[in-house]
Amino acid sequence: MPVSPGQTLRELRERRPLVHQITNYVVMNETANATLALGALPVMAHAPQEVEELAAVAGALVLNIGTLSEHWVEAMLLAGRAAKGPIVLDPVGAGATSYRTKTATHLLEELDVAVLRGNAAEIATLAGRDAEIRGVESIGADDPPEEVAREAGRSLGLVAAVTGPTDYVSDGERVIRVSNGDELLGAVSGTGCMSTAITGSFLAAKPDNPLEAAAEALAAFGVAGEDAARDANGPGTFHAALYDALYNLDPATLDERAQIAE
Amino acid sequence: MPVSPGQTLRELRERRPLVHQITNYVVMNETANATLALGALPVMAHAPQEVEELAAVAGALVLNIGTLSEHWVEAMLLAGRAAKGPIVLDPVGAGATSYRTKTATHLLEELDVAVLRGNAAEIATLAGRDAEIRGVESIGADDPPEEVAREAGRSLGLVAAVTGPTDYVSDGERVIRVSNGDELLGAVSGTGCMSTAITGSFLAAKPDNPLEAAAEALAAFGVAGEDAARDANGPGTFHAALYDALYNLDPATLDERAQIAE
Amino acid sequence: MPVSPGQTLRELRERRPLVHQITNYVVMNETANATLALGALPVMAHAPQEVEELAAVAGALVLNIGTLSEHWVEAMLLAGRAAKGPIVLDPVGAGATSYRTKTATHLLEELDVAVLRGNAAEIATLAGRDAEIRGVESIGADDPPEEVAREAGRSLGLVAAVTGPTDYVSDGERVIRVSNGDELLGAVSGTGCMSTAITGSFLAAKPDNPLEAAAEALAAFGVAGEDAARDANGPGTFHAALYDALYNLDPATLDERAQIAE
Repeated sequence: MPVSPGQTLRELRERRPLVHQITNYVVMNETANATLALGALPVMAHAPQEVEELAAVAGALVLNIGTLSEHWVEAMLLAGRAAKGPIVLDPVGAGATSYRTKTATHLLEELDVAVLRGNAAEIATLAGRDAEIRGVESIGADDPPEEVAREAGRSLGLVAAVTGPTDYVSDGERVIRVSNGDELLGAVSGTGCMSTAITGSFLAAKPDNPLEAAAEALAAFGVAGEDAARDANGPGTFHAALYDALYNLDPATLDERAQIAE
Repeated sequence: MPVSPGQTLRELRERRPLVHQITNYVVMNETANATLALGALPVMAHAPQEVEELAAVAGALVLNIGTLSEHWVEAMLLAGRAAKGPIVLDPVGAGATSYRTKTATHLLEELDVAVLRGNAAEIATLAGRDAEIRGVESIGADDPPEEVAREAGRSLGLVAAVTGPTDYVSDGERVIRVSNGDELLGAVSGTGCMSTAITGSFLAAKPDNPLEAAAEALAAFGVAGEDAARDANGPGTFHAALYDALYNLDPATLDERAQIAE
Repeated sequence: MPVSPGQTLRELRERRPLVHQITNYVVMNETANATLALGALPVMAHAPQEVEELAAVAGALVLNIGTLSEHWVEAMLLAGRAAKGPIVLDPVGAGATSYRTKTATHLLEELDVAVLRGNAAEIATLAGRDAEIRGVESIGADDPPEEVAREAGRSLGLVAAVTGPTDYVSDGERVIRVSNGDELLGAVSGTGCMSTAITGSFLAAKPDNPLEAAAEALAAFGVAGEDAARDANGPGTFHAALYDALYNLDPATLDERAQIAE
C-alpha cells in the first residue's frame, strides 16, 4: 500500500474507529473535536474502573502527559497494557521537568508504543536518555530534526514523529518528510496534541503501517491548517476554521496536496 | 401553563438562575458558555467541601458522568442530596462501560433525578436494566426512541429526554416530540452535554413542570442550532455561532419556530 | 518608567516569558490560548512532583481557584513557595462558598502574592475578612469598587485589581482607573480568568512594578475586547475574535487607545 493520506482518510471515515484518549485537561475538548471533525469517534476516559474495557475495544489509544499526575499515569499504564489497537504517545514537556521525562520514559518502557509524536526537544530528550543509558553518544535538540527522528525510531524501536516547520517521521531506517502546515498552528495551544489525536485516528485506519499512517496524518493535519489559515485573522478564527477544514478535507485532492517525500 | 419555550426563556433571563454543574472535563467550558449565553449563571464546582453549599442555593443541579471518576461521583452524590432545585442527569456512555452503567444506575437510585437526558442507547440501557431487575421484558436501543423515552419515564419515575434527529421527552405517559436542530450538532463534541445544561437552565425557570421545561429546552437549543448552521462552513464556525445563537434567541419568535408536538 | 502598555507588551513579546498557571478546568484552554496569543508562553502543570521546578523558572505564576480541590490547593502552595517570579491570584468565587473564602485567605497568608485580580465582591470579601480579623470597620461589595481596591491593597499589602465595567488597580495608595473593554466580555465564561493570565504575563515583563503592570494588562485586554467586539455577532464569534485581537494588538497604538487614569 503506497503512502496515501486520501485513501487512509477514506477508510477512516468508512470505519469510524473509536479513538480512546487519555490526555491533558487543556486540550481535551480540542482533541475530541479534531478527532470527530476528521471522521473518527473520540472517547475520553481515565477512570481505572473502565480504561481497560475501553482500550480493548478502541481502534487506537492516544496517551498525552500534558497535565499529568499520578493517577492519570496509572490509568495510562492500565489502558496501555489492555490496548488491542496501536498506541500513540505524546510526551508533552519531556525534558522540561524531570517528572515528565521520567514518566514518558516509564511509559515507553512499559508499553508497546507504536508512534511517539512530539517536538524535536521532547523526542531528543527521550532518545538521548536512551542513548545515555546505553552508553553511546547522545542525541540532542540541537541536532537536525531528521536525525532526532531517525535515532529515536532506531533506539526506542518505534516510529518517531518529530513535528515542526517540517515534520520528520522515522522508524529508524526510513525517514519520511512532511512539509504541510501553517505558522498559525504554533499560535494555538494544543495543535500539537491535536496532531497526535489525528495520528491515532489514522493509525486506527491503517494499523499495520504506523510509519506511513503517521506521515499521512501529519500531512492531512497540515493541509487542514493551510485551509484554515486562508481566511483567518489570527489564532482565534484560525482555530475555529481548523475544525471546519478537518471536516471538509477532501480525500480526492489530499494526495496531490500532501507534501510527503522520503 | 402551556408549552412555551419563549415564555420560559423570558423568565430565565429575568431571574438569571444559578445552575450548578458537576460535569466532565471535555465540555466544562462549553456547557458554562452555553448556559451563560442563554442567560443563566453557570457555577462549576466539585469539591466535597463546597458542593452542598452551592447545590442548596442553585436553581438547578446538572450532573454529567462524561469523564467520571470515584471522587467526582462522590461529589455528585453529596450535591444531589443537598440540592433544593431539580436535578438533571446526563448518563454519558451508559452502556459503553459497566462502570458508567453502574454509576448512572447508582445516581438514579440515590438521587431524586427530575430529568434524565441522553441518547437512545444510553437511556435504553438504564431503562432496560431496571426492566431486567424487575423481571419484565427489557427495552433496548433498537426499540423506537419514543418507546425508549416512555418506558424510561415510566419505569424510572422521571422525565426521560431522548435526543437524536428527533427528540422525545416523556414522563411515562405523555410523550412530547421535538423536531428542531441541525445535523452539524452531531459533528461537535459536547453538544449533547450542552443540551443537558440548557435543560437544567430551563428547569430552574420552570421547576414545577420538568416534562414541559425539558421539551422547551430542547426546542430552544434546536432552534439555536438551526440559526448557527445558517452561515457555518463546518463544525468549528458552527460551534462559535452556536453561542451567538443562544445569546440572540428571540423569545418572541421562539414559540413559532419551535417544532413541538405531542 | 511611565505607565505604557505598549512598551510592556513590546518587552513581553521580545522576552516571551514562561507563565506557569495552576488554574481551573473550565478555562485552562482559554487562558493558555490568551497567553500564547498575546506573545508569552503558557505552561499548565499541577503535579506536586513538578510544580516547584516549573515555578522556579517561570517569569510569573498565576493561581486560580475556579474549580479548586484539596490536591490542587496543595500544588498552589508548593508552587507559590518555590516561585521566583511574581504571583498573581484569582480568587474565583471567594464569598460564594466558605471553602473558597478560606482557601483564598490561606493562599494570601502563606504566599507572597503580588497582584490579587477579581471582581468587587470577591476582593471585598477578602479585604473585609482581613478588616474583620483586625477588628476594624469592614469593607463590602456595596462600597465603591475603587474603595474596595484601595482598602484591599492597603490591608492585604499587595496590588488589588478590581475588574468590572471600569477596573480599579491599587496598591493601597495610588489608584489607577482603566476604562477599556466591552460588555460582551461578561457574556463569555472565563474572560476574568483570561485577564488574570494576561496580568501574569505583563508582570513577567515588568516584575518591578506590579501596580503599573496590572493596569497595563487590563488596558491591553480591554482594548483587545473592543477590537473583538467590532464584528462579533454574539459571545461565540466574540470569543474567537478575542484571540485574534490579542495576537494583533499593536504596541504602537496601544498607549493612545488605553484609557488609563489616576
